[in-house]
Formats: sequence, structure tokens, C-alpha cells
Amino acid sequence: MIDMAEEKEMPMTKQGPPQFIPKLKGKKVIICLVSGGQPVTGAIEGYNPYEILIQTTKGPILVFKHAIATIEETTK
Amino acid sequence: MIDMAEEKEMPMTKQGPPQFIPKLKGKKVIICLVSGGQPVTGAIEGYNPYEILIQTTKGPILVFKHAIATIEETTK
Amino acid sequence: MIDMAEEKEMPMTKQGPPQFIPKLKGKKVIICLVSGGQPVTGAIEGYNPYEILIQTTKGPILVFKHAIATIEETTK
Amino acid sequence: MIDMAEEKEMPMTKQGPPQFIPKLKGKKVIICLVSGGQPVTGAIEGYNPYEILIQTTKGPILVFKHAIATIEETTK
Amino acid sequence: MIDMAEEKEMPMTKQGPPQFIPKLKGKKVIICLVSGGQPVTGAIEGYNPYEILIQTTKGPILVFKHAIATIEETTK
Amino acid sequence: MIDMAEEKEMPMTKQGPPQFIPKLKGKKVIICLVSGGQPVTGAIEGYNPYEILIQTTKGPILVFKHAIATIEETTK
Repeated sequence: MIDMAEEKEMPMTKQGPPQFIPKLKGKKVIICLVSGGQPVTGAIEGYNPYEILIQTTKGPILVFKHAIATIEETTK
Repeated sequence: MIDMAEEKEMPMTKQGPPQFIPKLKGKKVIICLVSGGQPVTGAIEGYNPYEILIQTTKGPILVFKHAIATIEETTK
Repeated sequence: MIDMAEEKEMPMTKQGPPQFIPKLKGKKVIICLVSGGQPVTGAIEGYNPYEILIQTTKGPILVFKHAIATIEETTK
Repeated sequence: MIDMAEEKEMPMTKQGPPQFIPKLKGKKVIICLVSGGQPVTGAIEGYNPYEILIQTTKGPILVFKHAIATIEETTK
Repeated sequence: MIDMAEEKEMPMTKQGPPQFIPKLKGKKVIICLVSGGQPVTGAIEGYNPYEILIQTTKGPILVFKHAIATIEETTK
Repeated sequence: MIDMAEEKEMPMTKQGPPQFIPKLKGKKVIICLVSGGQPVTGAIEGYNPYEILIQTTKGPILVFKHAIATIEETTK
């Protein structure tokens, strides 16, 4: 889903379009899934183009990006 | 999902097919998700080819485009 | 999801495989979503490879193609 | 989702991997959607890499392939 | 969703990453769909990168891979 | 969904972005599906860019990555 045209209309820096996930690395987040089930809460430990590794109180959980609806930072 | 043929049948300008999300930047929107859950309401703060950052009354929420069904502007 | 082999088995014209969405531009349609929620009804005002802009009685709604199950023309 | 390795293990003909949708053109089919809602029943009038046009008793319906779970021929 | 890095970490043979669907050809399988509806049961008659053709007791059914959650062999 | 820009902001090693699934090979995991149905529990026997083969107590199950929400290791 690469949309070159959209990028053109954004104020371009040398880094290209803004990247939101790298800024959340190490932060505690709530991840809501497209399935509408129980959200995943924990710290973002790592990520690649397809998956995000979350450190939860019950251990690490690998979350597929295609299954994520929203991510928000939490201080709780 | 790049569909070159469709683009041909659209009145082409130098910018290519119309881009709708850049026009909504800074605007307050209601985002309905494919999961059918609670819509996300807030101002579009940024976006890239995969995600849209929404500033809500509870703070920023990162919304994955693949999880979005519809976006509409709101004045409420 | 580009399927070159399928195209070969279709009677090829110079325009390639048939394009259905351009023919619906300006027409009033009912869009059923994969989420199974309330259909979106209105006129197709524009589209690009990822989204369709619908003019409804309540204003414009941007619909992501990945969230659409079916589109049918309506005279209602 | 192009999987070159799979193609290697299939008995290759000059046409590449088997194409199933072209063989259903003009046939009456029942299309079950991933949303689990009401199936779409009618004759396949046309298709492209993303969509299938179905002629139903209520008129044409454009069905997005990404929303289809199964297609089966029907004689009813 | 091609992930070159993953392939590197797998014991590489000349055939590349393991292919699971070709090994199921001709076998009787139960296919569970992402929609959570009724599973499709039958023998895998053919496949291409996007679809699998299943021979069921009620006739052939074309199943889109994007709608499949799991496939398991059955002896029932 | 290849996101080159994200990779740039990660501490790059010669292996590129971190790969999580190879590290789980042979481990017992619980796989939650996007459909929200019954999780799949078993050992990861193999994988390719699209599918993961799980050895369960009832035999092998092929799970499509697009249907997976989360994977977590289990000791149970």
C-alpha cells in the first residue's frame, strides 16, 4: 500500500514521511486489535515491518501489525 | 493494490489520482473502524502510507489505515 | 494482488482488464462494508487506488476500498 | 502474495498456475463473504484483479475479491 | 509480505522456504475461515497464489487464501 | 507492507530489522487468531513468508499469518 502521491503533499524532510512506531519504542502502550478482543498492554520492545514485540506483565507477546487497529501511549 | 488501469480513466493532472487524506490534515474527523467498535474522534495530526496519527481529547492515538472503514469530517 | 495469468485468459482490449469503479463515478451507490455495519449510501465523487469519496446527504465520507464488500448502483 | 516457490512444485504448463475465476465466467455462482453476511448469488459477468461483477436478479453488484471467502457454482 | 530476512535464518535448501500447501494436494482437509463460519471440508484439487480449489461432497468450492485461518489434514 | 523508513530509525545490524518468528521455532506457542475463535496451541515446526506450521496434540495445523493476531510462548 505504498502511496507515492501522498508523500509528495507532505512537508518532506530527508527522512521521508513521519514514522510513528519508532517514537513509541520502549514506551508503555495499549494496542487495540481489529478482532475487537482484549487489548494488549505493555512496552514496545522491538518491531519490524510486519510485527511488534510487546513486553507485558505476563511475558513477551508478538503482535502482527495487520491485526492492530490502534496504538496509544499509556502512563497507567 | 496499485491499479494503473483505473488511473488512466481518471482526468489526469500532473499530481496523479486525487489524494483525500492530505486534505483532511488538521481537520477534526470521525474514523470508523472495520472492527465495528467505538469510532476514533479527533484531529488528523500526521499520516504516512500505513498509519494516521489522531489527536484526541485523551491524547494521541495511532490508527492503522488497514483498520479504517471510513473517515468523515466533523464540526462537532 | 496482481494476477497476470488471469488477464491472459480474458479477451484483451487495449485498455486491459475491465474497470468497474470508473463507470460508477457520479452515480448513486450503496456500499456494503466488510464489517457488516450500516451501508454507506451516496454518489461516488472521486476515487484513487485505495479510497473512494462518497457524497452523502450528511456530507462527504471517505471509504477505504479494503473495507468494502460490495458496491451496487441504486436509483432510490 | 506471489509465491514463486509454490509454482515450482506444481506441474507447470505454459499458462502458469491454474486460474479458477476465468472458468466461472458466465456461470451462476454463490459468493460467501468474509463478513459472514448474506451471500451474493448471480452470474459472473466480468472480473479484474481486484473485483468481480455479478449480475443478480436485482441488478449488477460489484464484489471486491478481498471480501470474498468462497465461490461455488450453483444450478439453482 | 515477503520477508527476506526470515528466509536467511532458516536452513536454506535450493528450494527456498518450505512450501506447505503443495504437500496437501489431493489430501482431505478441513479449512477454517477467518470469518469463523462453517469450515470447508474436502480434498485440495488445485491452488494458485490466491485461491485453493476444494472438492467437497457437494461439488467444488473455490476458497480465497486471504479468507483462510487454518488448514489441517483429516482422515474422517 | 515494506517500510524502509522505519528500518532506518532502528539500530541496524547486518541482519536488518529483528526477526521474531525464527526465534520461536521449535518452541511451544499460543496463537490467537484475528477471528477471535479458539487459539491454536502447539510447537512451531516450520514457517514461510505466508504460513506457520504448528504441531499440536491433534496433529499438524497450517496457520496463515494473515489470520494471526498474536503469538506468545507458553510453558504449559
